[in-house]
Amino acid sequence: MDARDSVIQLIGYRVLSSFGGARPHDHAPLRSRFGWAARVEYYNRLGPMTLSSEVLTDFAFRLLTAIQVPQAKAELVAKSLVAANLRGVDSHGLQLLPFYIEIILMGNIDIHADGRIVSENGAALVYDAQNGIGQWISKICCDHAIRLGRAHGLSLVVSRESNHFGAAAYWAQRMSAAGMIGMVMCNASPLVAPWQGKDQRFGTNPICMSVPGSDLWLLDMATTTVALGKILNAQFHGRATIPEGWAMDSEGAPTTDTQSALSGLLMPLGGYKGSGLAMLAEILCAVLSGGAMSTELGGIRIQGQPMRTSQMFLAIDVARLLPLDEFEQRMKSLVGIVKSSRAAQGFDEVLVAGEPEWRVEAQRRRDGIPVSDGAWQNLVQAAGKLGVAVPG
Amino acid sequence: MDARDSVIQLIGYRVLSSFGGARPHDHAPLRSRFGWAARVEYYNRLGPMTLSSEVLTDFAFRLLTAIQVPQAKAELVAKSLVAANLRGVDSHGLQLLPFYIEIILMGNIDIHADGRIVSENGAALVYDAQNGIGQWISKICCDHAIRLGRAHGLSLVVSRESNHFGAAAYWAQRMSAAGMIGMVMCNASPLVAPWQGKDQRFGTNPICMSVPGSDLWLLDMATTTVALGKILNAQFHGRATIPEGWAMDSEGAPTTDTQSALSGLLMPLGGYKGSGLAMLAEILCAVLSGGAMSTELGGIRIQGQPMRTSQMFLAIDVARLLPLDEFEQRMKSLVGIVKSSRAAQGFDEVLVAGEPEWRVEAQRRRDGIPVSDGAWQNLVQAAGKLGVAVPG
Repeated sequence: MDARDSVIQLIGYRVLSSFGGARPHDHAPLRSRFGWAARVEYYNRLGPMTLSSEVLTDFAFRLLTAIQVPQAKAELVAKSLVAANLRGVDSHGLQLLPFYIEIILMGNIDIHADGRIVSENGAALVYDAQNGIGQWISKICCDHAIRLGRAHGLSLVVSRESNHFGAAAYWAQRMSAAGMIGMVMCNASPLVAPWQGKDQRFGTNPICMSVPGSDLWLLDMATTTVALGKILNAQFHGRATIPEGWAMDSEGAPTTDTQSALSGLLMPLGGYKGSGLAMLAEILCAVLSGGAMSTELGGIRIQGQPMRTSQMFLAIDVARLLPLDEFEQRMKSLVGIVKSSRAAQGFDEVLVAGEPEWRVEAQRRRDGIPVSDGAWQNLVQAAGKLGVAVPG
Repeated sequence: MDARDSVIQLIGYRVLSSFGGARPHDHAPLRSRFGWAARVEYYNRLGPMTLSSEVLTDFAFRLLTAIQVPQAKAELVAKSLVAANLRGVDSHGLQLLPFYIEIILMGNIDIHADGRIVSENGAALVYDAQNGIGQWISKICCDHAIRLGRAHGLSLVVSRESNHFGAAAYWAQRMSAAGMIGMVMCNASPLVAPWQGKDQRFGTNPICMSVPGSDLWLLDMATTTVALGKILNAQFHGRATIPEGWAMDSEGAPTTDTQSALSGLLMPLGGYKGSGLAMLAEILCAVLSGGAMSTELGGIRIQGQPMRTSQMFLAIDVARLLPLDEFEQRMKSLVGIVKSSRAAQGFDEVLVAGEPEWRVEAQRRRDGIPVSDGAWQNLVQAAGKLGVAVPG
């Protein structure tokens, strides 16, 4: 079993065992058959265990402090992971915690590192994360971005030698809460072949942007066509074929055969365009920060080596361009124009980026967060090993 | 015939009549059958008329001055259009000129306007293009971005009430030639439905980034899966079906039927992700600049109203983060790592963004620029009307 097989197998196991964790719009098969209400309903039927965000945050906090993560860091990691669950982005929520615990216990992450400023030069700052906890480093970097954005109108902070930071959205939202347009990107473990290639060179390299004001629009997307979980789901449900554009076989040829896809590679979004966007992120994060690039990265699912990810935080102080309330008014107009489009066949309405997640969040704040069987079992197992009391 | 039909018909006519003008990687059918060399060869066989960039630039310059465009502006427009032809991006080259001439003669563009700074606040600048020539405004905005980037480390310039600026790459390259990472976006005439919708709300809203140093990587991509030209090409060659993911029918349902696609809509790149990226561009360009948004825009192919496009120019002064030569070295390493991937089935090698265009450019600088029949006829026709001598 080579390194890649082991990655796929590990991800496969985890994704299959906690499949409830995909994003709302990752359910293409559901989309065509059911409307929005049905999909929300679907989420509520996922797991037998439904707990409030407070209880889950506390549980995560206790798991992290049990492995000696300092309190302030444990609190931030717990809160940011549960924030992803609240939004329905379970793939970036608590199901990550067992991985984090595993690699922290292996010594892959330095839980005591706070990182250091390598250089601050005008509105540009380079940060060495010193293999610290990704969320902790991201908080520090966001705060530098906000500070420098306030001073100059916009700012760019890049971190290197960092670790998994959960969902990019959380950090972009931290900046937008301060009146900034927050843009966040990172590079990630190489799982994706470049366009025209058949060897893994890029991560899912997400692109994320959040805007100030009330919850109107929030983009957080990987630069692959779909997540690996969607292909695993096809296998799980016994579907022999997947749509064009999702994956390539091991020779790098586009395939619609589920099995060939599983032994192959994820397709960059739209082929050469996704490949270009992944490289854009790689440049802004890793080339600029002096960090690890492409195949030099480890990952949260690759054991025995630090992840060495780089992250980018760009803040634009909106008020330097137009008054914040005017910006928000214009955002409302734009969202209104876009949503005024008649719905396409098979849909009830046009939704903009972020909207499905805010709807899930409203419901989960009210009704609690359903945790899938697989994710719950992994958390309970970790709690058992660490002597941490399980809620519920 | 409603406004949209007229747009489609106009574009259809022009694209069909000058179809040689698509980009190298827009030739998927060619890709599977021929290698790179064959594709370059294909370009050289396109048109009967092959002229040097100098001759074509001079021809374009004389056409523009014949309709009273001031010399400095005519020179810039001519040079930037031919630069696109040199790179093989003929869709954004001289074939645009007859459209420009037409709308300038109609008074849609104010050829004498230079625009004005609305506000300069730290590293952020808002520019009112006052319906001036898009290229002229973009040059001014790039220079402000470079100036402010130098002063602060990075900068953001947004223009409103502007016009078509040709290929975004030209302006990103202007910034990267000054040692900046240049990012350029714009909004454009609404031709694309938002995800889940069936009414036109977004333009092709390109995302472009250029980096300093020798020609290594350059991304300039629309946020749709393919250009309209690819679907017209399928019709042109009598192909009844197109691949999944290219288009939707008039009801917004994904279609692989060529005819349904032609009466339907272009698909945002990867569905909801392309829709999200288009809106990201719309926000950074139009919401921030206070300009026209979405359906408020005209276009170079929509007559009788100004285009009112907004453009964004973001400059990052690389030397604020790491020495320029180190940046270039790291870019070379990254490109090397990516290109070291074995080629996928049907390809000779991995190419990164910009590479196909630089290869075409080297050849066209040597052998001249082949102009397709359709584009040439339109130019000759315009020259005839304006009493301008035709070269060749």
